[in-house]
Amino acid sequence: MNDSSAIGVFDSGLGGLTVLKELLIDLPYENFIYLGDTARLPYGAKSQTTILNYLQQNIKFLLQQDVKAIVVACNSASSVLTANLEFPVPVYSVIAPGARAAAISSENACVGVIGTRATITQKAYLKALHLINPKLKVFQQACPLLVPLVEEGLLEDPLTNLILFRYLNPLIQSKIDTLILGCTHYPTLNPAIEKVIGRNIQLIDSAGAISQELQQDLTSGKINSSGQNKKGFFKILTTDLNDYFYHIAAQIMSPVPIHNIEHVNL
Amino acid sequence: MNDSSAIGVFDSGLGGLTVLKELLIDLPYENFIYLGDTARLPYGAKSQTTILNYLQQNIKFLLQQDVKAIVVACNSASSVLTANLEFPVPVYSVIAPGARAAAISSENACVGVIGTRATITQKAYLKALHLINPKLKVFQQACPLLVPLVEEGLLEDPLTNLILFRYLNPLIQSKIDTLILGCTHYPTLNPAIEKVIGRNIQLIDSAGAISQELQQDLTSGKINSSGQNKKGFFKILTTDLNDYFYHIAAQIMSPVPIHNIEHVNL
Repeated sequence: MNDSSAIGVFDSGLGGLTVLKELLIDLPYENFIYLGDTARLPYGAKSQTTILNYLQQNIKFLLQQDVKAIVVACNSASSVLTANLEFPVPVYSVIAPGARAAAISSENACVGVIGTRATITQKAYLKALHLINPKLKVFQQACPLLVPLVEEGLLEDPLTNLILFRYLNPLIQSKIDTLILGCTHYPTLNPAIEKVIGRNIQLIDSAGAISQELQQDLTSGKINSSGQNKKGFFKILTTDLNDYFYHIAAQIMSPVPIHNIEHVNL
Repeated sequence: MNDSSAIGVFDSGLGGLTVLKELLIDLPYENFIYLGDTARLPYGAKSQTTILNYLQQNIKFLLQQDVKAIVVACNSASSVLTANLEFPVPVYSVIAPGARAAAISSENACVGVIGTRATITQKAYLKALHLINPKLKVFQQACPLLVPLVEEGLLEDPLTNLILFRYLNPLIQSKIDTLILGCTHYPTLNPAIEKVIGRNIQLIDSAGAISQELQQDLTSGKINSSGQNKKGFFKILTTDLNDYFYHIAAQIMSPVPIHNIEHVNL
C-alpha cells in the first residue's frame, strides 16, 4: 500500500537539517515536513520535564500535518523518548541507530560520546550501547559550548580548536576508537574535530544511521512508501523566524536550495 | 499611601538576579517577585516578534501576582519594550537608565555597548544614547558567546579572555571611555573584562542605574512604597527548574541565601 503523506522530522532548531538533507538524498521519492522549534531552543540545558513537554507538543503538531512517521532528530529530545510513550505512527529516536553504528564500528570496545548536558545527563547513548553490548567501555563528555560556536558559524577557528581540545582530550586519553557525535550540530565541526583527534578515531553521526533504519522500514513495509516516481517535496517550518535563521538553514542545506521557511505557532 | 504589593522583576533566565540582588540591598523594605523564563531562554538570538510575545506573557503573569511595578531586567526584552505598549502599572526597561548613566560617565563622548544579538540589532542603547545627546559616538558589539560562557561558569578562564579580547579590541581601538554591559549576565565577567580593557574604561551595568530610578519613583510617590519597617520578602519563580539552575542562582545571589525556587507554567 502506498502513502504519499510526509515523514515528519523534528529538531529543537536548525541542526536537524543535517538529518533532513541526508534523508532527501537517500529517500528522494518521499515527502518531508521539517519542524524546528527555534522559539524555544536550545533544549540541551533544560530539564527532562520541559524537554518532554516540548517533544509531545511538537509530535502533536506534526501528527496534525498528517505525517506517516516522525524522526526526532534532536538528541536531547530523543534522550527523553522512552518506550512507554505511545504514538499512532512510528516515532524514531536518533539514539538507538547511532549506538548500533558505534557498536559495530568499535574494534577495541571503547566508545566516546559527546552531546549536550541533557543528552549526557540522561546517559541516553550509554544505556543504548550497554543494551547492545554490556561490556563496551563508554566515556561520555558534555560539550555545552559547541552549539553556540556552531550557531556563530565558527566552524574552523582557533577558539573552536581550543574548546574542542579541552572537551576531547580526556576521551583521547581513554583510548576510544569510535566517537558518537550526539548532537545534530556537531557534524558541521567534523574537520575541526579531526584536527584534534586525528583520523584513527571513527566519527559516528546519526544522520546516516537513522536514514538507513528508515530505508529498511520502508522496504519492509513498516512504513508505507510514497509510491511516487517523481522527486518528493519538503517543507521547513519553524516556531521563530528571522533572516539569520534563513541564512544558517541555507548554509546547512547547501547545495539543496531552500525556497521558503514558514513560521508556525504550536 | 502605602502598598505592600511586590515589585516584579523579570528576566529570560537567571542573569537578572544580579538586578534583584541590587534591589534587595537598596530597597530592603520592599517585597519582590522574580520571574525567570528559563524554559525558553535565551531570548538574545530570537526575533523581535517572539521576544515581544514572551515579554507580554511574562508581564501578564506578573500582573496576576498583583505586582505594583515591573522591572524588565532582560536587555533583549527591554529592547523591544516600546512607548506605545501600555500597562496598568509602571514597567521599567533597563535600557534608558543604563544609557543615562553612560552619557553622564563618558568624558570624551565616546561610548561602547556590548549585548546579545537582539539588543545590538535593535540598536536599543544607541537610540537611547542619541536621545540624550545626538553627538555621542556609539560603538556597538554583539557578543553572542558570552552568555554561554557565563552559564558554564567560565568566569575567569583563558578561553573567556580570548573571546573577550576578540569582542572588545575593536571598541578599545575606537577610544571609548565608557562601556555599557548591555546584558544581565555580563557583570559577572567584570574581572575578566577589566583584564582586557584595563581600568581606564568605565563599566556601566544596569542594576545600579535601574535601582536608582526605582528609589526616586518610590520617594516621589510614582510607586507607593511598602510602608513596612521590617525586611521585605522575595520569591524566585522559574518556568523550568533543575538542580543546575538552583546552583547558578545561589552563586549569583550569594551571600543572600535562597531558600526555594518555585516552578511555574505561564
